[in-house]
Amino acid sequence: MSSKLPESPTPSLSHTAPDGSARMVDVSDKVVTERSAIAEGFVRVSRELAVAIEANAVKKGSVLEVARLAGILAAKRTDELIPLCHTLPLDGVDVSVRLEPEGARSSSRRVRVVAAVRTRSRTGVEMEALTAVGIACLTVIDMGKAIDKAMVIEGVRVLEKHGGRSGSYVAAAVRDAGEMQ
Amino acid sequence: MSSKLPESPTPSLSHTAPDGSARMVDVSDKVVTERSAIAEGFVRVSRELAVAIEANAVKKGSVLEVARLAGILAAKRTDELIPLCHTLPLDGVDVSVRLEPEGARSSSRRVRVVAAVRTRSRTGVEMEALTAVGIACLTVIDMGKAIDKAMVIEGVRVLEKHGGRSGSYVAAAVRDAGEMQ
Amino acid sequence: MSSKLPESPTPSLSHTAPDGSARMVDVSDKVVTERSAIAEGFVRVSRELAVAIEANAVKKGSVLEVARLAGILAAKRTDELIPLCHTLPLDGVDVSVRLEPEGARSSSRRVRVVAAVRTRSRTGVEMEALTAVGIACLTVIDMGKAIDKAMVIEGVRVLEKHGGRSGSYVAAAVRDAGEMQ
Amino acid sequence: MSSKLPESPTPSLSHTAPDGSARMVDVSDKVVTERSAIAEGFVRVSRELAVAIEANAVKKGSVLEVARLAGILAAKRTDELIPLCHTLPLDGVDVSVRLEPEGARSSSRRVRVVAAVRTRSRTGVEMEALTAVGIACLTVIDMGKAIDKAMVIEGVRVLEKHGGRSGSYVAAAVRDAGEMQ
Amino acid sequence: MSSKLPESPTPSLSHTAPDGSARMVDVSDKVVTERSAIAEGFVRVSRELAVAIEANAVKKGSVLEVARLAGILAAKRTDELIPLCHTLPLDGVDVSVRLEPEGARSSSRRVRVVAAVRTRSRTGVEMEALTAVGIACLTVIDMGKAIDKAMVIEGVRVLEKHGGRSGSYVAAAVRDAGEMQ
Amino acid sequence: MSSKLPESPTPSLSHTAPDGSARMVDVSDKVVTERSAIAEGFVRVSRELAVAIEANAVKKGSVLEVARLAGILAAKRTDELIPLCHTLPLDGVDVSVRLEPEGARSSSRRVRVVAAVRTRSRTGVEMEALTAVGIACLTVIDMGKAIDKAMVIEGVRVLEKHGGRSGSYVAAAVRDAGEMQ
Repeated sequence: MSSKLPESPTPSLSHTAPDGSARMVDVSDKVVTERSAIAEGFVRVSRELAVAIEANAVKKGSVLEVARLAGILAAKRTDELIPLCHTLPLDGVDVSVRLEPEGARSSSRRVRVVAAVRTRSRTGVEMEALTAVGIACLTVIDMGKAIDKAMVIEGVRVLEKHGGRSGSYVAAAVRDAGEMQ
Repeated sequence: MSSKLPESPTPSLSHTAPDGSARMVDVSDKVVTERSAIAEGFVRVSRELAVAIEANAVKKGSVLEVARLAGILAAKRTDELIPLCHTLPLDGVDVSVRLEPEGARSSSRRVRVVAAVRTRSRTGVEMEALTAVGIACLTVIDMGKAIDKAMVIEGVRVLEKHGGRSGSYVAAAVRDAGEMQ
Repeated sequence: MSSKLPESPTPSLSHTAPDGSARMVDVSDKVVTERSAIAEGFVRVSRELAVAIEANAVKKGSVLEVARLAGILAAKRTDELIPLCHTLPLDGVDVSVRLEPEGARSSSRRVRVVAAVRTRSRTGVEMEALTAVGIACLTVIDMGKAIDKAMVIEGVRVLEKHGGRSGSYVAAAVRDAGEMQ
Repeated sequence: MSSKLPESPTPSLSHTAPDGSARMVDVSDKVVTERSAIAEGFVRVSRELAVAIEANAVKKGSVLEVARLAGILAAKRTDELIPLCHTLPLDGVDVSVRLEPEGARSSSRRVRVVAAVRTRSRTGVEMEALTAVGIACLTVIDMGKAIDKAMVIEGVRVLEKHGGRSGSYVAAAVRDAGEMQ
Repeated sequence: MSSKLPESPTPSLSHTAPDGSARMVDVSDKVVTERSAIAEGFVRVSRELAVAIEANAVKKGSVLEVARLAGILAAKRTDELIPLCHTLPLDGVDVSVRLEPEGARSSSRRVRVVAAVRTRSRTGVEMEALTAVGIACLTVIDMGKAIDKAMVIEGVRVLEKHGGRSGSYVAAAVRDAGEMQ
Repeated sequence: MSSKLPESPTPSLSHTAPDGSARMVDVSDKVVTERSAIAEGFVRVSRELAVAIEANAVKKGSVLEVARLAGILAAKRTDELIPLCHTLPLDGVDVSVRLEPEGARSSSRRVRVVAAVRTRSRTGVEMEALTAVGIACLTVIDMGKAIDKAMVIEGVRVLEKHGGRSGSYVAAAVRDAGEMQ
C-alpha cells in the first residue's frame, strides 16, 4: 500500500506481495464507475435428459428455473467462494438458462447459461458473472444426474466486460461473429 | 414420502413432485454406506499466464495453492450452493491443482483440477467433488485474469463414483484408457 | 453436562444455565431416531397481486417457485439463523407454496406455505420446518411488494411433529378437523 | 437492461423478464438516498411461557435478548436468504423484542418484535426489517418450545418505509391510530 | 487415501500430501465416539471498561451476553472458517463469558471466556471450542472498543480434550493446579 | 435515531438502547472516509512444530499459506461473526503469517500474524483486521495440533487505526519503539 500513499501513517505490508503470497489487491485508489460483465457456459446433456428437461419431468423439479435461481444466489456470494475477490454490492444480476436446439452433434444437446452482472464499484464483476454461470451449470448436473451421469460442463468464460481503467473486453467469438444471443 | 411410509402419521407432500416443482429428495430410507466421488476439470490458460503460474509470479499469489484451498472450502458448502443437495458430513476432501505439460495445442496450456471426496452417508458426493472442481477452476481465473482475459473452463465432469444403491460409475475415458493420473 | 456424566473427566459448565444465560442444549444422551415435522404459514395478499401471481406476471419472476426454493435453502441453514439450534443433516425437505382459492374474505386472498422436514437425528426438526415456512413467506413478500405493500404473514406454526422422546404433537385444528390437506 | 441504457455496449438480457423467469432487478439507475423501514411481528405465547420468559427461567437462556440478536444478525444476511434481494450495506439495525401486557384475550399473551433498519442505498430495506422480525419471532419459538408447543407467529408486516422514488409508506393501522409504540 | 483402501477402485490422490499441499485429512477409518473439548481465552480490559461492563452500560448492549451468543454461533461454523476442519454435528455447546475479580494487576482486569463442546463424531472438537472462544473474545473487543482501544486477547488455548484414538489431553496448568473453574 | 433526525417521519427506537439491550449502532450520519486498521497476534509453538512448519512438513499442508488465506476470507465475513459489526465493502486486505526468529525464550517459538485492512466507509475496520488475525491464528493451531497440543494465542490487538471522526490510534508499543515490522 505504501507506493500509493507514501505519506500515510499506515505501515506498509506490500512486502507480502513480492514473496508470492496471496493477497486481496488494494483497490482503494480505483474509481467507482459503472461496471458490467457477461459470462456464459454450457452443460452437455444426453438426448434422454434433454427430453425430460423439456417435459419438466425431472424428479427434483424444474431444472432450468432452479439453476437460474442458484446462479443468482451464487453471484451474491462470490466473495465468500473466491478467496481474493472483493465484496461488491451488485446492482443487477440476470441469469438465463436454456436448452438449446440441437446442433450438428447427433447424440447430445446442451444447456446454455448466460449471466449478466452490473455494479457501481471500484473493481469489475467478471468473477460474479462467472460464478453465477458455474453454479448454475453445477445445479443442472445435480438436477439431472439421476438420468444422465455423463454430463460435462464446457466453455465457461467471460463474453464481455465493460467499465474500469482497463476498458472493455469482448471475447473473440463474440467480437467476430456476433454469436451471442 | 407416502409411498415409503404408508402407515406413518406424517401427512404426505408427495403431490408436490408430480406438478414439476422443486424438492429435496427424501433419502431417509437409503442406507448409510461409504461413498466416494472423483471429479475433474480444466482451465485453458495462455502461454504467458502458464509461465507466470510456474514462476509463482502472479500478483495475487500462488495460483495453484489458493485454488486448491478454495476447492476444499467449497466442497464443504455444496449444500448452500446447490439448492437441492443434502447437507453431508464429509470425511475427506483432496483437491489437486496442477499446470499440465503442454499438449498438442501450440498456443495454450491448461490447469487440471481433480477433487476426491469421501463420506459415510445416505447419498453420494458427486456434487461435492464437482463443486470443489468448479470453484477451484473459477479461482484460477480470478488469480490469473490480470494476465489472461480469455481463460476457459472445460471438461468439468464426474470421473468416478462409488457406493450406494446404484453402484459404481466410471466415466468412459477413464474406463477405456486409464487416462486418469 | 455433569448430571449425565458424573464420572466424566470433562469439567461441568452446567452452572451457566441456572444464571439465565443462553446455551445450546446438550443432546448427546438423546437417541438417534427418525423425526419429522410439518409447519405452515400464510401471506395475505391483495386481489391485484393474487391475479398477477396466477398469471405469473410479477416482475421479479415466478413467485411461488422462487419462494419454494428459498424455503428449502433456508431449512438447511436453520442452525446459522436460530442461535441455539443444532446442526442437523436433513434427509428430506418438501415445501409447497400455493395461492388458495378465495375464502369468505372478499377483498383479500392468501398464499399458503407448508413445509415438511425429515431427519434421523438426536433432536427434532420443528425449527427447520418453521424456518422454511418463514423464509418462503418473506420471499413471497419480496416478490410481490411492488404490487402490494400491505401483505401480512399470519399463522406460522407447527402442524405436526413426530419422533423423539416427547412423542408426537399435532396442532389443535389439525387434530380436530383434519383441516390439513 | 436495454431500455435504460440503449447506447450501452452491454447486450441486453431483458428478454429473460417477459418470460416469467426470476431476476434480480437492475437498480443501477436508481439514486442513492437515505432509506429506512420499520417492520413488526408477534408471537402468541401461552400464559405459562409468558411467566417463564418474564422470570428469565427458560432453559435455553434469555428469550428476548437472544431473539433480538438473532434478528440483527439476520437483517445483515437478507440477501443470502431472500433470493432476489440486493446486498445492501446497512447503516443501523435496531430490534426490540418485548413481552406485551395481557390484552383482552384471557388465555394467551404475545411477544412483540419491532425492527428498524436504515441505509443509504439504491433500493429499500423493507425486506431487511421483515427478515429481522421473522427470524427474531422464530427464535422466540425455538427458545420457548419446550414449554409451549402451540406458539403462532402473527402479523408480520411493514409498518413504515421512507426514502426512494416511491416515497413513504405507512401501514393503515399506524396511519389511523398512531398504534405503533 | 490409498494406504487405507488399497483394494478400492478409487484412484489415490495421496500424492498431494507429500508435496506439502493442503488437504482435509481423511477420517473415514476413524471410529465414531463421544468427544469433547474445553478451551479458554482472556481479554484484558481497562478499569473503566470493566466498570461499564458490570453496570451493563456499554452503548452496544450487554457485552457478556452478546459475546456468549457469538461464541456459540461461531462454534457451529468452524468448518467454514478453518479451511481444513471437518463439518461436525455438535451435540452441545456451552460458552461462559465473565468479568473476573481483579487480580494482582492494579490497572487492568480481564474477561474470561470458556467454551465446552461435545459431539459424537470421527474427529475431535478442539477447533470448535477454540473458535467459540476466539470469536467471543473478538466480540468483547467490538462491544467495548468505544471505551477501551487497547484491549488485548491473551491465553487462547485448549484446556482439555477427551475421546478419540489419541485419548485425553489436559493442559499443564489445569493438570497441576486444578486452576479451571 | 431520533436525536439525529428529529424531523424524520421515522419513529424512534432509541429507547432500546438505554435499557441495555444490544443494537447495531446507527452510522448513517458518519462521513464516508478512507479508513484503515492493522492488527497483530501470535501463536506460541513448540520447537518441534516450528521445525515442521519451516520444512513445510505439516501433514495438513503449508501452515503459513493456509492461515493467510483463512485470515483474508474471515476479514470479509466479520459482519456475520461479530454480531453488531456493520457490513463493509473492504478495499484491500493483506495478511502476513511468519515464523519468527527465536527470541529470549529457549524452548518455544512463535508465529506472528499481521493483518492490514482498508476501506472507504462510514465506520472503521479494526474488527475486520482483528478477525483476520484471530482466524489466521486459529488456523495455525488447526494445522499444527497433531504435533503440538499446547499452542497458545497471545497478544491479539489493534496496532494502528486511521481515519474517521476519532482520528488515528497507535498502540503504545508501536508508538514508543517502532516495534512493528
